[in-house]
Amino acid sequence: MTTTATPPQSDVEALLDAWPTLDVDEQLARFVPLPRHEAEEVFFALSARDQAALLVGLPHRRSWMRLLAPDDAADLIQELEPEEREATLALLDDPTRLEVMALLAYAEDEAGGLMNPRFARVRADMTVDEAVSYLRKQARERPSSMSYIYALDDQQRLLGALSFRELFAAPPDRRVRDVMTALEDLVTVLEDQDQEQISHQMAEFDLIAVPVVDSEGRMKGVVTLDDIVDVVQEEATEDIAKMAAVSTPEAPYLQTPFLDMIRQRGVWLTVLFLGEMLTASAMAYFEGELHKATVLALFIPLIISSGGNSGSQASTLIIRAMALGEVRLQDWFRVVRRELGLGLVLGTGLGLLGILRVMVWEQVSPGLGAHYVLIGVTVALSLVGVVTFGTTVGSMLPFLLRRLGLDPASASAPFVATLVDVTGLVIYFTAAITLLRGTLL
Amino acid sequence: MTTTATPPQSDVEALLDAWPTLDVDEQLARFVPLPRHEAEEVFFALSARDQAALLVGLPHRRSWMRLLAPDDAADLIQELEPEEREATLALLDDPTRLEVMALLAYAEDEAGGLMNPRFARVRADMTVDEAVSYLRKQARERPSSMSYIYALDDQQRLLGALSFRELFAAPPDRRVRDVMTALEDLVTVLEDQDQEQISHQMAEFDLIAVPVVDSEGRMKGVVTLDDIVDVVQEEATEDIAKMAAVSTPEAPYLQTPFLDMIRQRGVWLTVLFLGEMLTASAMAYFEGELHKATVLALFIPLIISSGGNSGSQASTLIIRAMALGEVRLQDWFRVVRRELGLGLVLGTGLGLLGILRVMVWEQVSPGLGAHYVLIGVTVALSLVGVVTFGTTVGSMLPFLLRRLGLDPASASAPFVATLVDVTGLVIYFTAAITLLRGTLL
Repeated sequence: MTTTATPPQSDVEALLDAWPTLDVDEQLARFVPLPRHEAEEVFFALSARDQAALLVGLPHRRSWMRLLAPDDAADLIQELEPEEREATLALLDDPTRLEVMALLAYAEDEAGGLMNPRFARVRADMTVDEAVSYLRKQARERPSSMSYIYALDDQQRLLGALSFRELFAAPPDRRVRDVMTALEDLVTVLEDQDQEQISHQMAEFDLIAVPVVDSEGRMKGVVTLDDIVDVVQEEATEDIAKMAAVSTPEAPYLQTPFLDMIRQRGVWLTVLFLGEMLTASAMAYFEGELHKATVLALFIPLIISSGGNSGSQASTLIIRAMALGEVRLQDWFRVVRRELGLGLVLGTGLGLLGILRVMVWEQVSPGLGAHYVLIGVTVALSLVGVVTFGTTVGSMLPFLLRRLGLDPASASAPFVATLVDVTGLVIYFTAAITLLRGTLL
Repeated sequence: MTTTATPPQSDVEALLDAWPTLDVDEQLARFVPLPRHEAEEVFFALSARDQAALLVGLPHRRSWMRLLAPDDAADLIQELEPEEREATLALLDDPTRLEVMALLAYAEDEAGGLMNPRFARVRADMTVDEAVSYLRKQARERPSSMSYIYALDDQQRLLGALSFRELFAAPPDRRVRDVMTALEDLVTVLEDQDQEQISHQMAEFDLIAVPVVDSEGRMKGVVTLDDIVDVVQEEATEDIAKMAAVSTPEAPYLQTPFLDMIRQRGVWLTVLFLGEMLTASAMAYFEGELHKATVLALFIPLIISSGGNSGSQASTLIIRAMALGEVRLQDWFRVVRRELGLGLVLGTGLGLLGILRVMVWEQVSPGLGAHYVLIGVTVALSLVGVVTFGTTVGSMLPFLLRRLGLDPASASAPFVATLVDVTGLVIYFTAAITLLRGTLL
């Protein structure tokens, strides 16, 4: 998969590639014999969840925990069983333990739970030269992330920030205050801000790090882009799972226990099944017509699936556009107008194909009877109705859910399809009764 | 949406929020009157595609182009119509134009097309103190990204790298060579490496920047994490679109012309429709049975949709697991064994619900006739068969596609559903013929 310089690294990569497919005993068996520097490389590359699972079985746990930055240590501890947390905290040195405990007070998915509490700090009235020396001292004594340098006052309140490039490019005798970006031009986040919002904000302003402050403006830490990449992946997985009506996976596929997998899928499958039972009721209502003209049954799967497909296309596009901020709640009318038009055009296209199919088929292998043209027209008009209904409902359902304060991604393809299936049957039989009255019906 | 320090910024944010919903004339009308510093903030926050669309209508184009780093300028130029590219290149100063032209030679989705050709460089035999002074000079003369510092030899070959933190923490008189991470322990990428691979690699090793080298080991530039966040979003959008059988959107929803939208969705809708036509053929084959026992038709939508839902759950989970590297090609047998089991359990669950429904329904409103128990058993057994077929086929199709060198995400929910619909009908009618022979049939 990757291009790296040396053979030793390929061991590490091979193990990392296989990691999600191994159970924890196999992981331990392959991890423990590694030379220390390779083992460290693997350990750092693992997710907090994988680190936690591994740690429980490792010898020399203290040496592994002390490798981690406070935010990574906090993430690992959050993944442990509650009864193991205290003992693991005790493995840390005193200052780090205090930092980690402060981080553990935040929810995992808010700024405080994502941030690194260590960052490069200077005073605004230092000269550039003094700041450079001060940072060199800091780097030795208190290793921290150094994407930006933050100027704080004596109350730890954030005054401004600058990049290393800016610090380095500035004349040595200027004050930091005069070369930094002042607070009013900085993007900052509050400690309880949700990770999804932070991710949108960092993407919007192309930021690589964002300072976290409390309500008094005191700086608490830094959220960096590498934390956000994980957030973006998580959110995408969550949306994708919702779109297929699966509960959000908590572990990699092969590591999810069989019973969890049953639950993850069974619940939604059952809900959909109960919804889809309405199709049987709808069909029972039209059983008399079906009995008189069995031929109508032939086109049922074709018609309802076309409605489902066009509806799930529309809902998927709108859900994604909402997630990327391309469509807002107030745009609903522009969307519905557009989707109505799209539904009519697409439905007409499929309708023409449908009528063509009926005509050609009847020439090749007759069997629809004398009224096959009327049947073709019924199929075609139903397709126009069902597809238009599909695109409209599929596009509006995410708006409705968001308006109700729910996640638009729950308007998943299978739900839209179920809704459209029932309505599709009603549209089809209504068209049939209207058009075929006096002939077939 | 966001928490920022000052009122002026909310203008910027409001405009950025609305941007994807405006057409280009509205964008210009709101952009041009902004004070310069707000306009710059907006301009930087826009995607290359939006910058390109805006630039065409802007006064003082030169001043805007010169704001951009070479990689961003190259991205913008790639988004312009071909006939506008030369004139836009001419707006740049000479050294930047050369850099941009070199970047334009790469494909957009490979390392060379993503990288920034400007990076902080030192010689390996400088002392730490010399390196700090040299970097301060570089920062003034040649602004560049400074997440890492790279040590090159006189052939521009990469020898090693170190972070600012490492440089700052090192004793001033040590050589760079002695404090840097040597090439053999670095992750590097080749200039033609695909962006998706780079993104996996950076996620796997938690990197914030990765050096790009040519086949001789000469350093060409740096890909940083902010480039990769865009890649991750793009890939997720692409996968999500494929999963709903929509062509990958090239523009935000509201900015996509109506005809493009028809094409984006119509092509796949038609392909699915043609596939789904097989259901009509399958049904025609069983028309005799249907005529004798119209009641069988009632459960058709319920049964085929259950197969489709269980199949699309399975394919979605496997596609996502493959994208995240959690499942590899060689794991297919573990997956198929698991999905067979899941299908049997889930199918049995739905089957029991199905039989329950038939029994209860018949008590409440009789209409299925004397053989309703047999009908219930037929429905239940068909559900077991269809759901098991769904999970198995849904999970194996992504493997088959990947094995053939195609994108597993093409095994989208609608395709799996179409495949399962046809087979589901055959399973259902076969069960009916077997169980109801001599009674209803």
